Amino acid sequence: MMNFGFTDLYLVNPGEITDEAYMRAVHAANILDQALIFSTFDKAIKDIDFLVATSAKETLSEKKHNRSPVYLPEFTQQIQQVEGTIGLLFGREDNGLFNEEIAACDLMVKIPAHEEYETLNLSHSVGLFLYSIFLDNTIIPQKRTPIDNVEKTHLYDAFESLLTAINYPSHKYEKTLVMFKRLMSRSMPSKWEYHTLMGVINTAAKRLQQRKK
Amino acid sequence: MMNFGFTDLYLVNPGEITDEAYMRAVHAANILDQALIFSTFDKAIKDIDFLVATSAKETLSEKKHNRSPVYLPEFTQQIQQVEGTIGLLFGREDNGLFNEEIAACDLMVKIPAHEEYETLNLSHSVGLFLYSIFLDNTIIPQKRTPIDNVEKTHLYDAFESLLTAINYPSHKYEKTLVMFKRLMSRSMPSKWEYHTLMGVINTAAKRLQQRKK
Repeated sequence: MMNFGFTDLYLVNPGEITDEAYMRAVHAANILDQALIFSTFDKAIKDIDFLVATSAKETLSEKKHNRSPVYLPEFTQQIQQVEGTIGLLFGREDNGLFNEEIAACDLMVKIPAHEEYETLNLSHSVGLFLYSIFLDNTIIPQKRTPIDNVEKTHLYDAFESLLTAINYPSHKYEKTLVMFKRLMSRSMPSKWEYHTLMGVINTAAKRLQQRKK
Repeated sequence: MMNFGFTDLYLVNPGEITDEAYMRAVHAANILDQALIFSTFDKAIKDIDFLVATSAKETLSEKKHNRSPVYLPEFTQQIQQVEGTIGLLFGREDNGLFNEEIAACDLMVKIPAHEEYETLNLSHSVGLFLYSIFLDNTIIPQKRTPIDNVEKTHLYDAFESLLTAINYPSHKYEKTLVMFKRLMSRSMPSKWEYHTLMGVINTAAKRLQQRKK
């Protein structure tokens, strides 16, 4: 939960929160300390505006609405539009959610998984839900500042002067230059990578030209 | 691994594979049984064509290339183009990967996480990587067969006849009809949901019309 910026844990009729629970929480002890504990399911969901059941057990029939799921990637798009408090309801490690619990929810969501083994454990289910929601609400940092067109031109020029310096065969010249451009376009070098690369190429070309003289 | 269709587990110098490991694997004991065990890191990566380091500890400087990461969502797009055997390298639960191990990799990938607590545990990291790769290589089943234009028209007609049957105020009529259309467009009813809904609306409209007579 803390890995993805979630704070509000509701527990319905849980077992004892043991030392092991705190040990596993590592730096997220606060979430355990602040967890709200409810004696019944109905009390826990009282203030939730939009309740989401999470289950791997979907119905195969379109006629049975209760376990007719939305898939996780679709769901994280949809909830962008939901206002109010959203609750994600996870079931028991062994038995998941009962039908009447799923029926009390606004939606049932399923994590897409391989048909051979679709049931995830509770901990991984929670992780995948929270990661997916976090991701769809986050701008992923882009630490690389990509090079601009002037730098790009300099890089290609430098590569050309390297080709010249090694007396690269003229009939292959154009093709290899294009290959280099494609390569750079796919990897989108940052300014720092550009300067490093320019250093190498220019030094090599210069040394080679000096030897020729 | 089995949840997302992965089979090949390589372990470098692991602890004993205990009964607890099998208990936690639940239905995926096969993956443990077939795991390849290597005494050194170098032996394990020998036949991998494209090795990917996974780490939360990125560099803050663009100058330090070794821990300059690609983010998971970008990575799962990129590897579509990679040919050969791809290896995902996960580090120790406590210390992650060492710099020299990351340097031996073609790429370092990071899972986007909340800045307050970026380090995930090993198990969740693996889960998120495998889910993300699975997802980008899977067509998510679409079990709902959405209604076609004819059915859509029937549904709107039925709703209109319900409005008529309840003597809905004429100045609100058009607006409410549009609302219903928007509502249905967003939820994209399946054929079964359509028939259920039509049953309800038509029955209601009919009963109301009969009372009027």
